[in-house]
Amino acid sequence: MGKVYLVGAGPGAPDLLTLRAARVLGRADIVFHDALVHPEVIALASRARIVAVGKRCSQISTDQRFINRALVEAAHRHDTVVRLKGGDPMIFGRAQEEIDALRAAGVEFEVVPGVTAALSASAELGLSLTRRGVSRSVLLATPRVGVDEQPGQWARAVASADTAVLYMGSGEADAIAAALRAAGLARDCPAAIVGRASLPDRQVLHATLGTLGEQAAKVERGPALVIVGEALRGSTAASAPAGSEIPISAALGRR
Amino acid sequence: MGKVYLVGAGPGAPDLLTLRAARVLGRADIVFHDALVHPEVIALASRARIVAVGKRCSQISTDQRFINRALVEAAHRHDTVVRLKGGDPMIFGRAQEEIDALRAAGVEFEVVPGVTAALSASAELGLSLTRRGVSRSVLLATPRVGVDEQPGQWARAVASADTAVLYMGSGEADAIAAALRAAGLARDCPAAIVGRASLPDRQVLHATLGTLGEQAAKVERGPALVIVGEALRGSTAASAPAGSEIPISAALGRR
Repeated sequence: MGKVYLVGAGPGAPDLLTLRAARVLGRADIVFHDALVHPEVIALASRARIVAVGKRCSQISTDQRFINRALVEAAHRHDTVVRLKGGDPMIFGRAQEEIDALRAAGVEFEVVPGVTAALSASAELGLSLTRRGVSRSVLLATPRVGVDEQPGQWARAVASADTAVLYMGSGEADAIAAALRAAGLARDCPAAIVGRASLPDRQVLHATLGTLGEQAAKVERGPALVIVGEALRGSTAASAPAGSEIPISAALGRR
Repeated sequence: MGKVYLVGAGPGAPDLLTLRAARVLGRADIVFHDALVHPEVIALASRARIVAVGKRCSQISTDQRFINRALVEAAHRHDTVVRLKGGDPMIFGRAQEEIDALRAAGVEFEVVPGVTAALSASAELGLSLTRRGVSRSVLLATPRVGVDEQPGQWARAVASADTAVLYMGSGEADAIAAALRAAGLARDCPAAIVGRASLPDRQVLHATLGTLGEQAAKVERGPALVIVGEALRGSTAASAPAGSEIPISAALGRR
């Protein structure tokens, strides 16, 4: 019986793969990969059979149950099976459904983390998602829900966090801005849209909640992220000066 | 005039570095590194002068303003200057203060993202931080505040998110649990503590909010993360079946 590696391919650029992911790909017997993984990353699996099981917005995708079954079957035939996912497997990657199928079938697995798109978008912007005195929390969220799910509390969660990064969001920027305004965020709240982060044709657009829709219309190719929060103002002028931190118990005592 | 690279060293294990980070380190002239970066990662900078500017809880650390000045000065003397930080530079890495100093001095810079600790902890747990029908948002937060900052709304932000990962948290587990209970989370809310994720002496402890303090006391060496949320129950039994997603506009219409 082989082992299944759920591997994060990173945000897009092939050299944002981890060394571990490259090594696992190099000895893979079979690779099941998503649609948005860079061809140069897939090419690292030089001796593997390559199977595209890509999911992409608005396109017909391979049924998740088929993928689950295929991973279990592949582990019975091969030593090293790789499930290659964009970004990090554990952030909006549907990893749990595959892990549960592997566990139920008694198949050994290992998750190789990757750089999730939010981190790459922050690097492109040159703006940290956290900042002393301004942002002490970052929410990674999606406004999308399954057909059989309740819409959820994503807008409230965004409004409660200091900085928020919305995955799979730019195509719905008007609706996102309206929902966040309804949740209490101001019209001049800083926002940014980063399309195809880390790739040569990336786009970085600054906005506010009030201009998010018109700016998002300039995104030429997906996927893009929408980032919202005061940390995007791009100056530490308002942040606290450097100094040692105090433990939470003391912070709570100061309330 | 040289260029400064703010480089993420990843969560701990040296092979969770990105290929790009390894390449930049290989041609670095000087490296300023944090305390918790693995020696094997630093060793990749084989031709560089190595300067430790480590910050570590409860220890005296290099003043942030000194680091800012040192980076600018190094860029005047060297072609390739690396500022090497644990995890990802843009998540609790104090990157913005350094970026602002570089911008003010007209020094070119580039951020090389890294795998942040939350992703590695999720991989260790074998539990995805997002899950269809259970968790559509993940908060990365810290309960710590600067000596001159207000305590902030971190507990409210945690309560509003589906899953939360608290950085720099395990030493204050009792206070964290109390603050989250006061913010409305249930005593049986699933939690986990992951210490030294990705390293050979890692610790993975499952808990609930009610048992968080006693479990956290078992952590032998920092840093550790505290993770909270229903996604930790570890089964997709309650999640929605596979199916295509619907856009947010339709989801909003269903309210």
